[in-house]
Amino acid sequence: MTARIVTLLTDFGWSDPWLAEVKAALHSQWARWPGQLPHPVVIDLAHDLPAGDVAAGAWFLERVWPRFPAGTVHVAVVDPGVGSARPAVAASRDGHFFVGPGNGLLAFLEDQVEKPEVVLLDNSLYHGPGPVSSTFHGRDIFAPAAAHLAMGVSLGQIGSPGGGELLGRLPGKNRNGDAYHICWVDRFGNAITDLPRESDPGQRLQTGAQFTVAGHRVHGPLDHYGQAEAGRVFWYWGSGGTLEIAGNGFSASQKLGLRPGLALVVPDM
Amino acid sequence: MTARIVTLLTDFGWSDPWLAEVKAALHSQWARWPGQLPHPVVIDLAHDLPAGDVAAGAWFLERVWPRFPAGTVHVAVVDPGVGSARPAVAASRDGHFFVGPGNGLLAFLEDQVEKPEVVLLDNSLYHGPGPVSSTFHGRDIFAPAAAHLAMGVSLGQIGSPGGGELLGRLPGKNRNGDAYHICWVDRFGNAITDLPRESDPGQRLQTGAQFTVAGHRVHGPLDHYGQAEAGRVFWYWGSGGTLEIAGNGFSASQKLGLRPGLALVVPDM
Amino acid sequence: MTARIVTLLTDFGWSDPWLAEVKAALHSQWARWPGQLPHPVVIDLAHDLPAGDVAAGAWFLERVWPRFPAGTVHVAVVDPGVGSARPAVAASRDGHFFVGPGNGLLAFLEDQVEKPEVVLLDNSLYHGPGPVSSTFHGRDIFAPAAAHLAMGVSLGQIGSPGGGELLGRLPGKNRNGDAYHICWVDRFGNAITDLPRESDPGQRLQTGAQFTVAGHRVHGPLDHYGQAEAGRVFWYWGSGGTLEIAGNGFSASQKLGLRPGLALVVPDM
Repeated sequence: MTARIVTLLTDFGWSDPWLAEVKAALHSQWARWPGQLPHPVVIDLAHDLPAGDVAAGAWFLERVWPRFPAGTVHVAVVDPGVGSARPAVAASRDGHFFVGPGNGLLAFLEDQVEKPEVVLLDNSLYHGPGPVSSTFHGRDIFAPAAAHLAMGVSLGQIGSPGGGELLGRLPGKNRNGDAYHICWVDRFGNAITDLPRESDPGQRLQTGAQFTVAGHRVHGPLDHYGQAEAGRVFWYWGSGGTLEIAGNGFSASQKLGLRPGLALVVPDM
Repeated sequence: MTARIVTLLTDFGWSDPWLAEVKAALHSQWARWPGQLPHPVVIDLAHDLPAGDVAAGAWFLERVWPRFPAGTVHVAVVDPGVGSARPAVAASRDGHFFVGPGNGLLAFLEDQVEKPEVVLLDNSLYHGPGPVSSTFHGRDIFAPAAAHLAMGVSLGQIGSPGGGELLGRLPGKNRNGDAYHICWVDRFGNAITDLPRESDPGQRLQTGAQFTVAGHRVHGPLDHYGQAEAGRVFWYWGSGGTLEIAGNGFSASQKLGLRPGLALVVPDM
Repeated sequence: MTARIVTLLTDFGWSDPWLAEVKAALHSQWARWPGQLPHPVVIDLAHDLPAGDVAAGAWFLERVWPRFPAGTVHVAVVDPGVGSARPAVAASRDGHFFVGPGNGLLAFLEDQVEKPEVVLLDNSLYHGPGPVSSTFHGRDIFAPAAAHLAMGVSLGQIGSPGGGELLGRLPGKNRNGDAYHICWVDRFGNAITDLPRESDPGQRLQTGAQFTVAGHRVHGPLDHYGQAEAGRVFWYWGSGGTLEIAGNGFSASQKLGLRPGLALVVPDM
């Protein structure tokens, strides 16, 4: 049987023992249940999310998870409230599994018509060995839960059924109307927005309308970086289907002062 | 048969060819011996340890290795003396294997009553192909040794038996009395100490005694970050069983000037 | 059957969704063709190459690829011209496979007498699902191509045969005469050059000649770092067979102002 995939997305960084301990907790379950499936393919999505930035983690995972095959288990830990009343949860949607804190990080799973199955990770049989640390659920609850899901244990076995409210809410998330924003600035200084090509404003921009961001009007759309004039910031439809702003060989975000949260102003027709 | 785990801990960074060449040397052994076990699960513990900081590497590995299952092979390379008289060694303890320089990095294996089995990696049959570079034992000696151990070759086959003195000594390591110190400052600015909850000073702190560090008295213990007053540094029993110092949403280490090596002062009763 | 190895070398960094999406695109092919070989062993060579620095990527891959076993698939993406006229290519040499942009990144494959087999990746059956983004061939063309090669699909199936000119040329690459240069400065401040021990200048340096770099005469050769006098920069024959310049416990490159591109001046006999 082919191996399951487990993805890991955290704000733990790459330098501290935290990520190593999460991986130890995950793989140790295969020593405990040696008759099970082979070790999963573990894929590090990113680990240097801004510390405690739940919205950044949510944006990243919402974008990336649908590109993995059904059966994948996604572990996401940006968890400044670890040990407090926020629940530890697992969920499934479209054959994928999700494990993490119920602090809004996974709330995007609720955004669709069909709702996810959600459980509270309260079954200590599926926690790690030893007592659960109140400051490290990634190691003691989430990694063991992901391991069991990857082994084929059901969501209903590892936790108690709950509603979508267990996932929590993401403060400040607002998708109403045409208030579109910069969501991410990448290594190259490209600014990625949440304005989809198929939206009404997207169609208007496609046919000649202009937008401004941080007080700047941006030239576009281009098809690829090589079409850009030297030194000129431009926009294009990015590889995720939304508007992106870039420079060819320089950082557009540095030049224009772009950062996550800034709004795009698209005039009405 | 289930795959073996190989962990890698170095100060090679993630940007240079060194880590890539170590992994090539490791996995190439499976092409050489195709009838053997499947490729191991290779887990990067950390690679941006402070350059040449043997004590940091030792602290990290001593903390993390027991969380992996028996049979795991741990490769640790912080090796400023590579090519000099310091030996290249492998050891086993509690069913785990360890490979690295005999410069004190693995000396913690000697700290317990039951002593580890130690060998000198002097059998060139189990070195990499080609001559051994005097500046890159990670690639030419340690990675091939780890591969053979992960394939089930015995410690006695790949090296000559030696004593624990082959592991070397870690300068400045001092665990006598109640001289406890900050060992690590993590990405969040949390300071991790070597003061265990079960120690005498730990018990005194638990029942109302206070400590100072860098001239500051620190509030605690709390149970988790969410209990903290805004802006106030606090301490708690960390996920490794020792005292940690943190802030909720800010770096306690930056605020108080904490860094590895600073002592905790715990008054006698 | 033993798993294939796929290596990844990019300038995508570790923080953005790009690398995660490449890995998703790669592994998703195993869900699509579940009867095929096991998931490959995926090895990250490096991902923080200087953004857009094709020469740095070429130097890195040329150095590292021969250390992997035959059958390995190497994916290299430093691709500032993505979406423009530069071709998307795959090649094979000595039983290894290579996938990436035809912008000179893989031109080193042409440097030998025996020429590589090269194809243009124009068969959309072997591209990713959905339309190919004009700014993300790493995800939509290169990763799926690598997956199919790792599954045993032939080069001729996934693309149309072409000549070595498809690989492009690396601007500024010059290996004539004895114009040797610094190619890389590593994390430790060691400067790695392309001056081989077996070359004529290498033999002259071995027998007492001196070179200068950035106006400095450098002491050497030493055998390993431990032989160095405190604070003195020295040179030695590095683990890749070429001249390297280092300090013991400090950065030689910082001290002497060394950086990639600087020439070594070796006087004639």
